[in-house]
Amino acid sequence: MEGAAQFRVEAARLEGRVRDALLAAGASAESADAATRAMMHASRLGVDSHGVRLTEHYCRMLAGGRLNKTPNLTVDIRAPGSAVVDGNDGLGHFAAYRAMEVACELAATSGVAGVGVVRSSHLGAAGAYALAGAEAGMIAFATTNTDSMVALFDGAERFHGTNPLAFAAPVPGQLPWLLDMATSSIPMNRVLLHRSLGKPLPEGVAADAAGVPTMRPEAVEMLLPLGGAGYGYKGAGLAGIATMLSAVLNGTTLDPDFIPMYDATDISTPRNMGHFVLAIDPEKFAGAAVFGEMILRYLEALRDSPPRRGARTMAPGDREWTESDRRARMGIPVDPDTARYLRLD
Amino acid sequence: MEGAAQFRVEAARLEGRVRDALLAAGASAESADAATRAMMHASRLGVDSHGVRLTEHYCRMLAGGRLNKTPNLTVDIRAPGSAVVDGNDGLGHFAAYRAMEVACELAATSGVAGVGVVRSSHLGAAGAYALAGAEAGMIAFATTNTDSMVALFDGAERFHGTNPLAFAAPVPGQLPWLLDMATSSIPMNRVLLHRSLGKPLPEGVAADAAGVPTMRPEAVEMLLPLGGAGYGYKGAGLAGIATMLSAVLNGTTLDPDFIPMYDATDISTPRNMGHFVLAIDPEKFAGAAVFGEMILRYLEALRDSPPRRGARTMAPGDREWTESDRRARMGIPVDPDTARYLRLD
Repeated sequence: MEGAAQFRVEAARLEGRVRDALLAAGASAESADAATRAMMHASRLGVDSHGVRLTEHYCRMLAGGRLNKTPNLTVDIRAPGSAVVDGNDGLGHFAAYRAMEVACELAATSGVAGVGVVRSSHLGAAGAYALAGAEAGMIAFATTNTDSMVALFDGAERFHGTNPLAFAAPVPGQLPWLLDMATSSIPMNRVLLHRSLGKPLPEGVAADAAGVPTMRPEAVEMLLPLGGAGYGYKGAGLAGIATMLSAVLNGTTLDPDFIPMYDATDISTPRNMGHFVLAIDPEKFAGAAVFGEMILRYLEALRDSPPRRGARTMAPGDREWTESDRRARMGIPVDPDTARYLRLD
Repeated sequence: MEGAAQFRVEAARLEGRVRDALLAAGASAESADAATRAMMHASRLGVDSHGVRLTEHYCRMLAGGRLNKTPNLTVDIRAPGSAVVDGNDGLGHFAAYRAMEVACELAATSGVAGVGVVRSSHLGAAGAYALAGAEAGMIAFATTNTDSMVALFDGAERFHGTNPLAFAAPVPGQLPWLLDMATSSIPMNRVLLHRSLGKPLPEGVAADAAGVPTMRPEAVEMLLPLGGAGYGYKGAGLAGIATMLSAVLNGTTLDPDFIPMYDATDISTPRNMGHFVLAIDPEKFAGAAVFGEMILRYLEALRDSPPRRGARTMAPGDREWTESDRRARMGIPVDPDTARYLRLD
């Protein structure tokens, strides 16, 4: 709110407006709470692409019928270390948080537990669920497949989604270790940003309609997998892991078969998106105490490792926690369209 | 054996010589069998860096005392879905195969199971163990940490090992889906090869002593994580996952603390290397039948996805299975030093 060009909003106020918008769109209190929590996670940590700007999109999907306003989640415990959550076509955040809760409960007894999610939808930042697992004391993993956006290695069409892999682990006395990465180098909205700025892209991150790498944002038709033109078979393989665990294991929609997230021609048909989460209880390996000592030693060695001149060595999450701290002081930046939608202006 | 410059050896003959060499070095039958199986896996699939050329190294470590010739493996079942295998300082392959067997047995009941390995040593190609899990019908994962070789993102010293992540999944009527990837773009022996050929390296795969990316192989002091100068925080984060699950969770040696694998000054002290394997039973999610149908649909779509001109879209493993087939017909190439050591010449 401090400037004309960019609004900065205090987190609690922003959170209230997001929840109110979802409730006004008819979302049940539980599912609105989950979606708000996940969007605020992303907005706090600086992942604005998955933050509160998605409120309007979700509200439109609730109105259109793609999303069930009042989903009745069911949890099918299949074995001591496995379960399937049926999202009943509601907001994906609701099903994904529930899945991680179930994984943590099961892992506390079984040591390791995996939970699949079916009949879900866009879950925002996968890191939100990994973080929830780490906050419960677990090494946690969360993934989802998404609509086609990224070429295969040597491919010439959008095949996998940007399929994120998110991991988190608890650190005694510190904020969790947190890695939330797309399996492409960059997201598509980075291309759009460069397009609007008339700025060339880095090498090896995107390709034209023939699958040929290009740095010209206006020529981009698809993203390239992590590893680029030389080693993109690794990024494509990792994207495949996301699809394997989210769609193949659960029998849900494959990446190329999704109704596109932003396709306005059909906002009434559920997308049957799958996710997968995993929790590992350190207590059932060398023990939580040993794990705590070891991760402190590991992170100390990592942060003390000499950097390249003018740079800094950081653990996954360090950048995000610093940004979160800054935003707690300065407020969360909100783009003008979203500010208008949430009546923050 | 067909040429002067390169020996090609029939697989069964090669396998016999490798096993004989390990037995002659004093390895127990069980541990020699496991190491032979893992090296032959790599040599069959074309991963020669982890193939039979390591026989001599392992024999030297058995003689030196770093490796226990007659390890007594113990399995501590910690929970329905977790266990710890103590490798008793023997050949890492022996402990890692046992760990995957235990993971598959546990997962058949618990749905998902993770097994840590302590007091182990070099395990060769991590893909060997993921493949063993897939052959048992599981989605399988195997990882290990290794001695420091790869800079952190923005780092200026060797920190993580090339820390592999290996995944495999069963495919009805076909060879498994198989991804075995280092979390660096290239291995150090690729640098040595370019050095001996006087050939520049690709961009963004290695750095000099100050951590500055270089394409000059003779200037290389460390590898860069997958993603290179722009997105290497992703590769470094993935290397961290390997360390987290292999060393931090098990309380074993961190990457910078290892006695280097090829350090000849100490070949008598065990290295206390940790590994981690995971098995997921599709039967305990949507069911093995649904999984089988889905993975066939997924792989058909992937292989039918249009390639870039002059290229071909492949699933992880396709290249390796093709090479395996070729080597079954043509024999396995063996370098002259190894051929001499195994008395194949």
